[in-house]
Amino acid sequence: MDKIIDFINVNRDRYLDELKALLAIPSISALPEHAADVKRCADWCADELRRIGMQNVTLFETPGNPVVYGDWLGVEGAPTILFYGHYDVQPVDPLNLWESPPFEATIRDGEIYARGSADDKGQVFMHMKAIEAHLTQTGRLPMNIKIILEGEEEVGSANLDDFIKAHKQELAANVVVISDSGMFARGVPSICYGLRGLVYFQLDMRGSNTDLHSGSFGGAVANPALVLSQVIAKMKDRGGRITIPGFYDDVVPLSEEERKAWASLPFNEKKYKKDFAMPKLFGETGYTTLERTWARPTFEVNGLLSGFTGEGAKTVLPAVSMAKVSMRLVPNQDPNKIAGLFQTYVEHITPKTVELTVTRMHGGKPWMTSYDNPFVQAAARAIEKGFGRTPIFTREGGSIPVVSTFQEELGLPSVLFGVGLPDENAHAPNEKLDLGNFHNGIIASAVLYEEIGRLGTVS
Amino acid sequence: MDKIIDFINVNRDRYLDELKALLAIPSISALPEHAADVKRCADWCADELRRIGMQNVTLFETPGNPVVYGDWLGVEGAPTILFYGHYDVQPVDPLNLWESPPFEATIRDGEIYARGSADDKGQVFMHMKAIEAHLTQTGRLPMNIKIILEGEEEVGSANLDDFIKAHKQELAANVVVISDSGMFARGVPSICYGLRGLVYFQLDMRGSNTDLHSGSFGGAVANPALVLSQVIAKMKDRGGRITIPGFYDDVVPLSEEERKAWASLPFNEKKYKKDFAMPKLFGETGYTTLERTWARPTFEVNGLLSGFTGEGAKTVLPAVSMAKVSMRLVPNQDPNKIAGLFQTYVEHITPKTVELTVTRMHGGKPWMTSYDNPFVQAAARAIEKGFGRTPIFTREGGSIPVVSTFQEELGLPSVLFGVGLPDENAHAPNEKLDLGNFHNGIIASAVLYEEIGRLGTVS
Repeated sequence: MDKIIDFINVNRDRYLDELKALLAIPSISALPEHAADVKRCADWCADELRRIGMQNVTLFETPGNPVVYGDWLGVEGAPTILFYGHYDVQPVDPLNLWESPPFEATIRDGEIYARGSADDKGQVFMHMKAIEAHLTQTGRLPMNIKIILEGEEEVGSANLDDFIKAHKQELAANVVVISDSGMFARGVPSICYGLRGLVYFQLDMRGSNTDLHSGSFGGAVANPALVLSQVIAKMKDRGGRITIPGFYDDVVPLSEEERKAWASLPFNEKKYKKDFAMPKLFGETGYTTLERTWARPTFEVNGLLSGFTGEGAKTVLPAVSMAKVSMRLVPNQDPNKIAGLFQTYVEHITPKTVELTVTRMHGGKPWMTSYDNPFVQAAARAIEKGFGRTPIFTREGGSIPVVSTFQEELGLPSVLFGVGLPDENAHAPNEKLDLGNFHNGIIASAVLYEEIGRLGTVS
Repeated sequence: MDKIIDFINVNRDRYLDELKALLAIPSISALPEHAADVKRCADWCADELRRIGMQNVTLFETPGNPVVYGDWLGVEGAPTILFYGHYDVQPVDPLNLWESPPFEATIRDGEIYARGSADDKGQVFMHMKAIEAHLTQTGRLPMNIKIILEGEEEVGSANLDDFIKAHKQELAANVVVISDSGMFARGVPSICYGLRGLVYFQLDMRGSNTDLHSGSFGGAVANPALVLSQVIAKMKDRGGRITIPGFYDDVVPLSEEERKAWASLPFNEKKYKKDFAMPKLFGETGYTTLERTWARPTFEVNGLLSGFTGEGAKTVLPAVSMAKVSMRLVPNQDPNKIAGLFQTYVEHITPKTVELTVTRMHGGKPWMTSYDNPFVQAAARAIEKGFGRTPIFTREGGSIPVVSTFQEELGLPSVLFGVGLPDENAHAPNEKLDLGNFHNGIIASAVLYEEIGRLGTVS
């Protein structure tokens, strides 16, 4: 193992050059004009898997973007990891807030800035380099591995479930490893045992067939921007509690044990507020910030658009208004049930003065595992070796819907082995990845393979 | 007079060709990238005034766009008209809703489609052609006239008040004529005796210094799009009544005489609703549609913007949100007082979880005149001659702030002599002007000069 770690340390700079090439590909799955870039990124990943010694590297076509597959299955009797990551990235707007171009990775103060650096290219690449280190130095891996890299994670993984269902045999394994989440804080490595689910909607309202003059028509006609605001305003009460009837029915309450454990974590609310220049925190009454983000469901507005939004003043009465809204779900909320409750409520509270269109977009189930699972414990040891510190156990506010799919379709537990930091701006301008965590993450990944190999075939 | 009207009839087609050239200039005052076009339009108007025989044609520079001036003062002892119009136009977005390019005037079904056709280039040009007809046919006008054409009407006439105050002597006259309003309906010419005022604001809210991941942060942080929605929702109650404290204090109630007169107007609410495909009308309880638009104040949202508004789904928690909102005012509401009430209320109801910026934009006072004014009666006779039908007396929901300024600074009554139609999409895509009304308007304008000339010098 030492010679593998030495190899990783010696190659530190080369890894960055290679990572920059991967980050240079604007593989934005949400924007049709980047379709060719997404495809190019899939090819890049496939080439890299071949180069580091993975076998059977294939692009599986889907109705959307291809799934990159590769495996190495040379150790009979050892466990098989199914590694999942994604090569697509979020859009970059608003572009003017980026301090360096999003697809020209730039190193500043020990961080690499680029769209996809943390979410998820940097973390995928970490494993590629760990595999490369093993294969270069020993000609083998300590366990078996199957890798799938998806190109539609940032648009809801519409085709991934079908892919998994169609390839259950080929994807058979003992554990799923995913590095697409964050550490608790700088210097505080962690393992995540719970994720929130998601339902996402677009609401469109139409009040007339054309924008109208607000002088000639104002006062006599419903204003779809005002109606939209009224409908959105009715989603939460003053205490931050969501008012959709039945919304909380299936929520598993926080255990006292969790509340105590989380209260002892080194979380500095003042710093959190200050880091993001928030005038004042706000959330559901009766819960702490960690509880609100890890264990309580949310309703958020992700986007609003109506009427004139340019510079200056235009006295228009908008014909239409649009909102993107989403809800994060916690165990045991079911996305389909919540989507139904939301749609019923929106239809109920929207007045007949506007024509309402409710469009459901992507989503996923919430997930939780137990932290005495042997793979989770193996991951804890690997992180301790890579980062020199015992990880803490956390939940995460984000959603990785595929984790539920792996559980349900393949019967596999997942280990969430993430090295992002909470301030790394995934989904926002100036996304970045800490270079120290990236490097330690390569070492920890290499050790993880060793630790999982040692477990022998467990089921 | 007959030979003047004959001349107008003979030149009908030429007028359209000339008007098309004026409509081809994209003089959008709201957009800095069109500054040169605005200037070019001012030059075009000055050239045309010179060509038709106006004297002392000058561009008065202002801190913004120039005021085009020209006069003809050849009849001692006759009244002097101060004619006001504007050569700037509204922005054209959303461009994709235009059926023909907004700056390539296109004739379809007896209407000329172009940005500015009704508001206000077509109506300004109508007077240019009436003056040309008089001067060509008789070598003189029946009265004196001073023309001022403004280039900032669509952005709030920021420099017009100062211009008027600085040129009180040069602008001295007996009556103001403005053709920047509408007829009651197709075939129902009208004279407008009341206008609403306006206050316009931009609200900006900031919840954090960067867009955040809605998974990692959702539930613990105020969402500025949600807060904005909540604040806007609090502006009106369920009965459509504005909830800003003190907002209605100075509103002059509708007289029973007005309510009766308006109730007898040929207004078809079903057709109104159908023409604009409105699912259901909405307005303040206890008032008819005409009362709501002519005599009651409003609160409208003119624009909304926050977060991700592209195609697809982005799980962002927006850092900022923005709304453009405006209020139409009726006699005797004072824009400064209402602006103060609004700002106080918004600041009061906005939670401390967001940083609020309230920016006041343009505005103007409401206005009303008496319909037995001799100039208004002269205009009624002119319209009867041009359109073959006695005009009805109406109020108008829009705002022409300069009307109040003429009253206060120059002591002049205004005659609102408009030939637009309610469905001509001023401020919206597919703006158009009825060619029959345009032509009849030229004749009516020519007759108006004659009628005003006959009044002799009144004060």
